[in-house]
Amino acid sequence: MTTTSEYRPGLEGVVAAETRMSRVNGHIGELIIRGYELEEIAAKATVEEMAYLLWHDRLPDADELAQFSYRLAKKRPLSPTTLSLLKSVAKEKAPVMDALRIGAGTLSLGLDAVGSRELAEAIVARFPTIVAAYWRFLYGQQPIEPDSELGHAANYLYMLTGKRQSLALVRGMETYLNTVSDHSLNASTFTARVIVSTGSDLVSAVTGAVGALKGPLHGGAPGPALDMVFEIGSAENTEPYLREKLDNGERLMGFGHRVYKVRDPRAVVLGEAARKMYAADGDMALYELAKEVEKTAVSLLAEYKPGRNLQTNVEFSTALLLHGLGLDTALFSPTFAVGRVAGWLGHCFEQMENGRLIRPKSNYVGETGRVWQ
Amino acid sequence: MTTTSEYRPGLEGVVAAETRMSRVNGHIGELIIRGYELEEIAAKATVEEMAYLLWHDRLPDADELAQFSYRLAKKRPLSPTTLSLLKSVAKEKAPVMDALRIGAGTLSLGLDAVGSRELAEAIVARFPTIVAAYWRFLYGQQPIEPDSELGHAANYLYMLTGKRQSLALVRGMETYLNTVSDHSLNASTFTARVIVSTGSDLVSAVTGAVGALKGPLHGGAPGPALDMVFEIGSAENTEPYLREKLDNGERLMGFGHRVYKVRDPRAVVLGEAARKMYAADGDMALYELAKEVEKTAVSLLAEYKPGRNLQTNVEFSTALLLHGLGLDTALFSPTFAVGRVAGWLGHCFEQMENGRLIRPKSNYVGETGRVWQ
Repeated sequence: MTTTSEYRPGLEGVVAAETRMSRVNGHIGELIIRGYELEEIAAKATVEEMAYLLWHDRLPDADELAQFSYRLAKKRPLSPTTLSLLKSVAKEKAPVMDALRIGAGTLSLGLDAVGSRELAEAIVARFPTIVAAYWRFLYGQQPIEPDSELGHAANYLYMLTGKRQSLALVRGMETYLNTVSDHSLNASTFTARVIVSTGSDLVSAVTGAVGALKGPLHGGAPGPALDMVFEIGSAENTEPYLREKLDNGERLMGFGHRVYKVRDPRAVVLGEAARKMYAADGDMALYELAKEVEKTAVSLLAEYKPGRNLQTNVEFSTALLLHGLGLDTALFSPTFAVGRVAGWLGHCFEQMENGRLIRPKSNYVGETGRVWQ
Repeated sequence: MTTTSEYRPGLEGVVAAETRMSRVNGHIGELIIRGYELEEIAAKATVEEMAYLLWHDRLPDADELAQFSYRLAKKRPLSPTTLSLLKSVAKEKAPVMDALRIGAGTLSLGLDAVGSRELAEAIVARFPTIVAAYWRFLYGQQPIEPDSELGHAANYLYMLTGKRQSLALVRGMETYLNTVSDHSLNASTFTARVIVSTGSDLVSAVTGAVGALKGPLHGGAPGPALDMVFEIGSAENTEPYLREKLDNGERLMGFGHRVYKVRDPRAVVLGEAARKMYAADGDMALYELAKEVEKTAVSLLAEYKPGRNLQTNVEFSTALLLHGLGLDTALFSPTFAVGRVAGWLGHCFEQMENGRLIRPKSNYVGETGRVWQ
């Protein structure tokens, strides 16, 4: 134990898991989830199909899908304890991500004895209910009861707004949730795997993962990208505004990615989803303005930062899509969690099968030989 | 990103942090915490001194200690939201560790705006209040209000039992909490570090850490060791009982450790603390029996498993000490968390200063090229 091994800051480049969940190949702009390229599946599958795929490594047949969807729908309602807790938390005006972490932590209540698959279903089913109920409490409204006749994505929109939304909006939400459902071993997913690696439970894992997702370095703060579009306000103002920012050395939010060097496949999928959704049921003027900002920004970035190939990233497309769905910026990260939780749980199942405690070493660089006076 | 690096199962041998917190040297049976050998400090420091040391890398002077202790004592009461939540959770008879995780998650309420040192003080101050309040709710009693005239350990015992306990018992609790306060990069501590590495907050970190500590592979399930002593019941029965177990190839709980090969310094410190405590204020018959079981077990293990050098581990000594403090077995793991939380927070401070996202890689070994039908 005194042997000093090489310190790997941030565990960069260290392989902590073998996974059949997803692969990110940034050099060619590719994201594979359970064997499917993102573009192949995100806009086609329902959230229920995607969750089934993430947990079973294959799509369900018609019967399996019907049964799985039915079980999820039945599990949506929250316990009275969770609901009254969210109501109290809303009085304190806690951020929505804090409320989601607090609510998620209570999902073990009454479910101590169920198997992990059933518990996972309850967790996925209830994440949207927590977010929507808390959002309504926050604005002094009563939560909307989940509607078991609606699919997962449609019901989430319904619980947020109190209205059954159009097919175009539901498909937009569905595509978003599928797109963010998994992304290899990001920090929140890794947190979930470390927690279950001790033999702990799925509620502990997703509660920890929500806590990790909260952090600004995790990625996924899509608000600022759209704020810029609103500030610009008109097509004529786009180029002067962006040039001023770039001349001042400011960063343009929503462009470029640490890993995806040629294109971000999630941005492509969400951009296309936004186009369809706005065309069917949206504010086309805003959409056109956003596209103008995007086109101009990419072209100016090529001029100002040649060779960097800075493309639209997932945050820009997310902001455009979620805004079109009627979501307040404060709901963007919680909605990310509503999508990602299915992936967290798939990784937990994999970790539980593998069964090895994740327990790295540390190098001690502190004092020795201190004496109590 | 497609480069396949070597998979490190469980991250075994990988150094994930440089730390000035603690060092475990299993080959010589040594645990150093912030420069002090465990034997040098655990039975001498108060919990407040230990927490200050863990967070500042030095002991406080008299003024600093008085102010720090005062601030901790003032922060012990729980918010009405946390208290009424624990009351609801108790109606569901949830395990104490679940209640601690649920209660810990709410500690951000009303503290969004405070600095991380102040938040850490509130977390350490309130962990015992959560455990004690929940324990009393579980048995249909009202929680005991924290007494700000008592030190941290004395007040924990007071809130659990409703009585001010003897100095011998308080010193026993204090020594226990100090002994488990840190242990290099165990899975719960690592969880806390991963969570804050995203820029997330201390409440998220300790909530995730409680979830990891729950797992049976984390270590720290001291109940079974003492159950064996109760089953044996008398000195005469000790050797026949243990021989029968060993003849049947059963494991003796409470002996041997994965890392500590010659001695477990925590077992030594807690064994000595138990001796003093039982002598001053305890059931000496039980203590003598436990020592007889320990002596016989170590000697029989040397006979049955020669060369393995299986010594008493921390679980045996913990069980003896915490039982002598009047704690039910169900309170052992939560009390471990009450001690360890100061270490988790010290590691979080270190991680926050370092500021690097912990984000290992995964190797994808799943399908590719699947096509949506």
